[in-house]
Amino acid sequence: MAKGITKRSVDYSKWYIDIVSKAELAEHSPVKGCMVIKPNGYALWENIQAQLDKMFKETGHVNAYFPMFIPESFLKKEAQHVEGFAPECAVVTHGGGKKLEEPLVVRPTSETIIWSTYRNWIQSYRDLPILINQWANVVRWEMRTRLFLRTTEFLWQEGHTAHATFDEAEEETWKILRVYQRFAEDYMAIPVFIGKKSEQEKFAGALHTYCIEAMMQDHKALQAGTSHHLGQNFAKAFDVTFQNEEGQLEYVWASSWGVSTRLIGALIMTHSDDNGLIIPPRLAPIKAVFIPIWKEDAQIDQLRSHVAKLTADWKGKIDFKIDDRDQYRPGYKFNEWEQKGVPLRIEIGPRDLENNQVVLVRRDTGEKIVVSQDGLLQRVESLLEDIQSTLFERARAYREEYTFTEDDLDRFVHKCNDPGGFFWVHWCGAVECEDQFQEKARASIRIIPFKGHEESGKCIICGKASQQRVLVARAY
Amino acid sequence: MAKGITKRSVDYSKWYIDIVSKAELAEHSPVKGCMVIKPNGYALWENIQAQLDKMFKETGHVNAYFPMFIPESFLKKEAQHVEGFAPECAVVTHGGGKKLEEPLVVRPTSETIIWSTYRNWIQSYRDLPILINQWANVVRWEMRTRLFLRTTEFLWQEGHTAHATFDEAEEETWKILRVYQRFAEDYMAIPVFIGKKSEQEKFAGALHTYCIEAMMQDHKALQAGTSHHLGQNFAKAFDVTFQNEEGQLEYVWASSWGVSTRLIGALIMTHSDDNGLIIPPRLAPIKAVFIPIWKEDAQIDQLRSHVAKLTADWKGKIDFKIDDRDQYRPGYKFNEWEQKGVPLRIEIGPRDLENNQVVLVRRDTGEKIVVSQDGLLQRVESLLEDIQSTLFERARAYREEYTFTEDDLDRFVHKCNDPGGFFWVHWCGAVECEDQFQEKARASIRIIPFKGHEESGKCIICGKASQQRVLVARAY
Repeated sequence: MAKGITKRSVDYSKWYIDIVSKAELAEHSPVKGCMVIKPNGYALWENIQAQLDKMFKETGHVNAYFPMFIPESFLKKEAQHVEGFAPECAVVTHGGGKKLEEPLVVRPTSETIIWSTYRNWIQSYRDLPILINQWANVVRWEMRTRLFLRTTEFLWQEGHTAHATFDEAEEETWKILRVYQRFAEDYMAIPVFIGKKSEQEKFAGALHTYCIEAMMQDHKALQAGTSHHLGQNFAKAFDVTFQNEEGQLEYVWASSWGVSTRLIGALIMTHSDDNGLIIPPRLAPIKAVFIPIWKEDAQIDQLRSHVAKLTADWKGKIDFKIDDRDQYRPGYKFNEWEQKGVPLRIEIGPRDLENNQVVLVRRDTGEKIVVSQDGLLQRVESLLEDIQSTLFERARAYREEYTFTEDDLDRFVHKCNDPGGFFWVHWCGAVECEDQFQEKARASIRIIPFKGHEESGKCIICGKASQQRVLVARAY
Repeated sequence: MAKGITKRSVDYSKWYIDIVSKAELAEHSPVKGCMVIKPNGYALWENIQAQLDKMFKETGHVNAYFPMFIPESFLKKEAQHVEGFAPECAVVTHGGGKKLEEPLVVRPTSETIIWSTYRNWIQSYRDLPILINQWANVVRWEMRTRLFLRTTEFLWQEGHTAHATFDEAEEETWKILRVYQRFAEDYMAIPVFIGKKSEQEKFAGALHTYCIEAMMQDHKALQAGTSHHLGQNFAKAFDVTFQNEEGQLEYVWASSWGVSTRLIGALIMTHSDDNGLIIPPRLAPIKAVFIPIWKEDAQIDQLRSHVAKLTADWKGKIDFKIDDRDQYRPGYKFNEWEQKGVPLRIEIGPRDLENNQVVLVRRDTGEKIVVSQDGLLQRVESLLEDIQSTLFERARAYREEYTFTEDDLDRFVHKCNDPGGFFWVHWCGAVECEDQFQEKARASIRIIPFKGHEESGKCIICGKASQQRVLVARAY
C-alpha cells in the first residue's frame, strides 16, 4: 500500500487528510479556518472553473464583479437572510487607520450587495432578464474546518439573475440545477440525486432551494451545488421594481446559485482509493504521465529521445508529462503519480522500445495493457474516456449498493449507523418529524424529489399519511 | 459628437468618467471606495487575465491561492513593509459573533502570508525555485477613488517566487518585467518605458522595483505594472532558510510582481476618443459588429439570412456580434458600438447585397472601406491586426510628441504645467532633489533607466554632477 496514506477502512477522516496532503492539493494556513490551495489543487479548480464557466456562458450568462464588503445594514434588510448569515460573518470595523461609521461584513454570499445594485439597473421589462455570474472568494466563519469541505474562506461562483416573472426565475433555477447535474456527472464523474431542500434546509431568503446531492465513500451525503428561487424577497428588501409590458410596476423575481471549492472534496471522496487521489480524466491537469524505465545509464538518452519523438505531436492535444528524473527509481515515481491521481501511466523500457510497444497502467483499476506505439495518442485518448465512464459507473454502482428503501424506523436507525447510506423513506411533511431524523439518527432530509416520485405511504417517524418518499442521510 | 460624452479638451476627468459609464465598464458601489465591474468591463478583464495567465504559464509559473486574511502580527514582521501598508489596511476585528484575539488584516498584498507558508515548503535547494502566481482581490483603503485607477478593493495578480540566489531572483524580476512590457505593447497596444523605481518610490520591503510606465492622453504617467526584487527581506522576516548544494543554510531570495484592474484605466486613457471607448482588437470581447441596414421591413429577413450565411463559419474563429435589433435605427447603433469600443463595424444594406459588398468602418480612424464579401473573414482579420498596430503606433507617436529632454529648471516646471508630458532630466541621486520635483512641479521620478543610458550632466535641481537622465512626470 501507498506510504503515508491511512486506509479508508482504518480511519476514513485520516485517509481524506492523507489524500489531500500526499496529492499536495491544500493545507491549513496559519490563519484559523483558512486554507492554502496549493498548485495541484488550484490546477484542478482551474479546470472546474473553465468547464463551468463555458457552460454558464453557453446558457447566456456573463461574468461581473461586485464588492466583497457589504454594509452591515444591507444584510439586515432581508429578515431570513440576516438570521441565516449574521452569525457566520467576519466584520471589518476599521479601515485606513480609523474606526468605520458603519461596520462592513465580508461577503458570506452576495445577494444583498448585488440587489442593491440591480435597483439602479432595472426600470423596465426591457432591462430583464439579467443573467450574471461572479467568481469570488467568500467568508463564513467556521469553528470546525476541513480542507475543501468546510473552511472559513472559500472560492466559489455565485449566479444572481433577475427576471420579470415567477416562471422565468423558476426556469432559470431549474436550468442551472441541470447544468450542475451535467457538470457533476459528465465531468466530475459523480452521480448525483437532484431535488428540493426542505423548508428547514433551504437557503436563508429563498422561496425554495434545489440541489445536487452526492454519496461519499463513507456513505455520507455531500451537498455539491444549490440553485435557489428567491421569489421577490430581495427585490422587496431592496425595492427593485420594473414596469411590465402593461405599464404596471412589479417587484423583480430572482434566482441565485453556487458551487464552490467544496467540489474538490466531493471529487476526492467519490473516486480516490487507498493508494491516493484519482482524478477523472476530463478534469485532470495531467492526464497521462510517461515514465521511461532504464537499467543502465546508457539507455537514458535513447529512451528520452524516443519518448520525445513519440509525443512530438501531442502538445496542445492532451495534457501529459514526461517524468525522466534520474534521481528517483521507477517504483517511487509510480507511487508518486498514483498518489497525485494522474489517470494513466505510460511505462516504456528498453524492451518496449525493441518491441514497438508501451505499457499503459490505468489509475482507476490498476490494469496493465501492453499496446503498440502506433496510433498511441488515439489509444490513450479512448482509454481516458473509458476511465472517465468507468469512474462514473463505479460511483453509481457504489451509491446503488448503499441506497435503501426503508419503512421500518428501528431498522432505518440501525442502518444509519451501519453501514450508513442513503434512505428513501416516507415523510409526512411535519417539521417535528424532520427533526427526529436528526434526533434519532443524526441524519437529515437531503432532497425531496421532484414530481413523478409520488407514492402513498406512512411517515416513518409518526405513521401519518405521506405522499412521497424523501432521501435521508447523514451529511457533511 | 457622441451624446453624453464630455470632450477631452473640455474636461479630461469628466471625459474619463463618461467613457467608463457609456461603455458600461464599471460604476461606483454603495460601499465607499469600491466599484462594481459590470459585464463589459469584466469581459475585458477576462481577456487580460487569459493572455497574462498564458504568458505566466509559458514562463514556468503555476497558480495557487492563499488566505485573504493576514494576522496583524505577520504584517509587522518586515519593518518597511508594515510602514508602507498598515495605514491602508482594512481590519477584521470580529468573526462568528466574537471579538478576535488577534485582528486580521484584509490582504493589501500577500508577501507576509505567503512567506509564512513558504517557510514550511522550503528546506533544500531542491525545493527551489518556487514560481507561483495568484489571481485575487486585494484591499488598500483609499480616500479619493477613481474607477479602475484607484479603488479600495481591486482585482489583480500577484506573483511570489522563491530562489536560491540573488541572481536567480534578479533574472525572474527582469523576466516578468519583460512579460509585462510585451503584454502592454503587443496586446494592450500601450507603449511603455521600463526602468527602476527610486528608493522612495520602490515597493515597501523590496531591494528594488522595476516597472512599466505609460503616458495617458493628458500627458500624465501611469504606473501599469511592477516587479520587485525582494532580496532576502521576507525570508529573514519569516525565517525561511534552505540548505544549499554545499550543505550550508542560507536565506531564500524572493521576487514579487503584479498588475491589476488598473490596466483597464490605462487602456481607456491611452486609446479612447471623444466618441467613446476604443479597445485594441486583441483584447476586445467583441471584435466586429455586423449592422444590417434596411429601409423597408420587407428587406429585414433577406438581410438577416444573408448575414447568417456570410458568417456561418466565423464561429470559434472570431468574436463578433450581429446587431439586427429592429427597435433602433442604424445611427443609434453606430453610436452605441462606437461608445463601447468595438474595433470594427460591418455595415450591410440592400445595395451592398446586390453588389456583393459590405462597408467596413474602423473604430480607430473612422475610415470607411468598401470590400467584397468574398474572403470577408480574412479581410476582417487582417484589418483588425492593422487596427491593433495603428493604435500602438498612434500611442507611441503621441508619447514621443510629449516626451522632452530638458535641462532648464524653469522651462521644465513651466512645461509640466503646459503641455505636461514626460521629461528626461538629469538627477544627482539625492532624495532632496527628488523631493523638489514634487515641490516645484507636482511631478515625480517615474523611472531610472537601465544601464546603457548613462550620460554625464548636471542635476536639473541642484546642478551637481549627474551620471544619467531619469524620467520625470506627473502621475496617476
